[in-house]
Amino acid sequence: MHRIDCLQYCNWSEKIFRQMREGGVDAVHVTIAYHEMFREMVANVEQWNGWFERHSNLIFAGRTGDDVRQARSEGRTAIFFGFQNPSPIEDDIGLVEICHMLGARFMQLTYNNQSLLATGCYESEDTGITRMGRAVIAEMNRVGLVIDMSHSAERSTLDAIEVSSRPIAITHANPSFWHPARRNKSDDVLKALGESGGMLGFSLYPHHLKDGTNCTLDSFCEMIARTAELMGVSQIGIGSDLCQDQPDSVVEWMRVGRWTKDIDYGEGSAANAGFPPMPSWFQDNRHFDAIAAGLHKQGFSQADVAGIMGDNWLNFYDASFGPAE
Amino acid sequence: MHRIDCLQYCNWSEKIFRQMREGGVDAVHVTIAYHEMFREMVANVEQWNGWFERHSNLIFAGRTGDDVRQARSEGRTAIFFGFQNPSPIEDDIGLVEICHMLGARFMQLTYNNQSLLATGCYESEDTGITRMGRAVIAEMNRVGLVIDMSHSAERSTLDAIEVSSRPIAITHANPSFWHPARRNKSDDVLKALGESGGMLGFSLYPHHLKDGTNCTLDSFCEMIARTAELMGVSQIGIGSDLCQDQPDSVVEWMRVGRWTKDIDYGEGSAANAGFPPMPSWFQDNRHFDAIAAGLHKQGFSQADVAGIMGDNWLNFYDASFGPAE
Repeated sequence: MHRIDCLQYCNWSEKIFRQMREGGVDAVHVTIAYHEMFREMVANVEQWNGWFERHSNLIFAGRTGDDVRQARSEGRTAIFFGFQNPSPIEDDIGLVEICHMLGARFMQLTYNNQSLLATGCYESEDTGITRMGRAVIAEMNRVGLVIDMSHSAERSTLDAIEVSSRPIAITHANPSFWHPARRNKSDDVLKALGESGGMLGFSLYPHHLKDGTNCTLDSFCEMIARTAELMGVSQIGIGSDLCQDQPDSVVEWMRVGRWTKDIDYGEGSAANAGFPPMPSWFQDNRHFDAIAAGLHKQGFSQADVAGIMGDNWLNFYDASFGPAE
Repeated sequence: MHRIDCLQYCNWSEKIFRQMREGGVDAVHVTIAYHEMFREMVANVEQWNGWFERHSNLIFAGRTGDDVRQARSEGRTAIFFGFQNPSPIEDDIGLVEICHMLGARFMQLTYNNQSLLATGCYESEDTGITRMGRAVIAEMNRVGLVIDMSHSAERSTLDAIEVSSRPIAITHANPSFWHPARRNKSDDVLKALGESGGMLGFSLYPHHLKDGTNCTLDSFCEMIARTAELMGVSQIGIGSDLCQDQPDSVVEWMRVGRWTKDIDYGEGSAANAGFPPMPSWFQDNRHFDAIAAGLHKQGFSQADVAGIMGDNWLNFYDASFGPAE
């Protein structure tokens, strides 16, 4: 029974690390790059190394599935690094392995826009995986860096599932049958993902939720039950997309980076440009029990709830983070 | 009985990796930076990653003493990374841990010149360890990156031995009592090094040898016997400084880097600017048996020969490459 959140990007602090412990969270996949180039991403690893040193009683650097088990037995939280954009590898395929050596375990091939590797979900044309994209997927497969298509477009995502020799992940998104946001995923994608052994992490970010901030826990858990039928109950987990304590300048950085001089509101709007308020029943790391209770109420077995709350991700971590066999 | 060479900088090729196997060399500390800044050093790690992938039957990335044992049992050679200059950490102490994460296990505080950390052996004034030098030594001690003072000046070297909370290394130099080259080390330095648990690696680079290229094996082994009396027989090993197959442009890069627009001949001269020819009895990795035989002839016991040929370095690796206790 391990508890894993497969996506957070908080304004990190001792308070939040303590809340991870209060919530019994054994592992968190944290974003360390949105638009950062290699050297900037390294500076973010340096910052995390400082937190690991200062808060070693609460957190440590996670590299393998066994680190999640160690975290549980020691009462700490294992932190796994990921990128929401391939910008840290720049145009250099050799940086894939370097990033893995530095602890990266997930990398999105695109963040909303066209990248060197694939097409993002906000482009009007989706040309699928590029030539470099195929080469980088093979290298990611080789070293054990997981392909994450959370912000990618439909065809690119289906391509990635097919091109990758190892299962991929959509760490933080929901099904579009429940809430047809541009970031949410079609039945076709979810079926192909499940059949290939891939994982979906359910997002708690209000723009991905039916009724947004007012989404009910019952509606969220009912959606999980329907997705389990579509994908298989062992292929789903949580990827909350929690952005706790971030100022609104950060959501602007996430959306705009340095790629435009205009404002892009992404999933928001001029009238609602900032971070949306989280649902009342999921405000921070202390509230995962509420989701587990909601899943029980929905009729999931004890084992299935344990799977969704972390054990499914743990199986995936075990299979995904080492070199290809 | 493990065989370790604690310094080489060859023009790497499959031929040389095969010669390591022919010579029964279980581990080599290789230089991956002379004057490279961080991103350039990373490119050199990328190049090594390519060699590890293509020649995995011959070599692999070494991180711990146990990797030397694994190398021996598998008939491969473990490659350990080191820097001859602190340039890869630039002015950023956080890069010490990042470099360790990328596999660096040795870093010289200076290469001939004054650095941000200490004074090199070619400066006319030796001001010892700088403020940043003390901070970086503490950080290197914390993460398990060994301080190497091979190219440092006398006072800086004595300072480093004293300031460091863990034993340091002089990976490639000889005693100046035998050959008073500027790069060789005084009795004071060698005694302090031995008493502190540090290690000296004997160099086969002709400029460090009595009679240069014409140095005899007997003279080399007699020098080792005298040094063993000075330092203790468990504090010495080999650091050949082998620069096999390098063009002379490389020794110019080693000496001049980008720090001057003039030519600096270092240990050479205008008349003798290139790499000097190696002694006839040590041309490449296949010739370590000759040194072992010379040590036997000198009267060393079987166990002491094994220590000098690698087991002393292995003990040092075991104690030095992990985080401070």
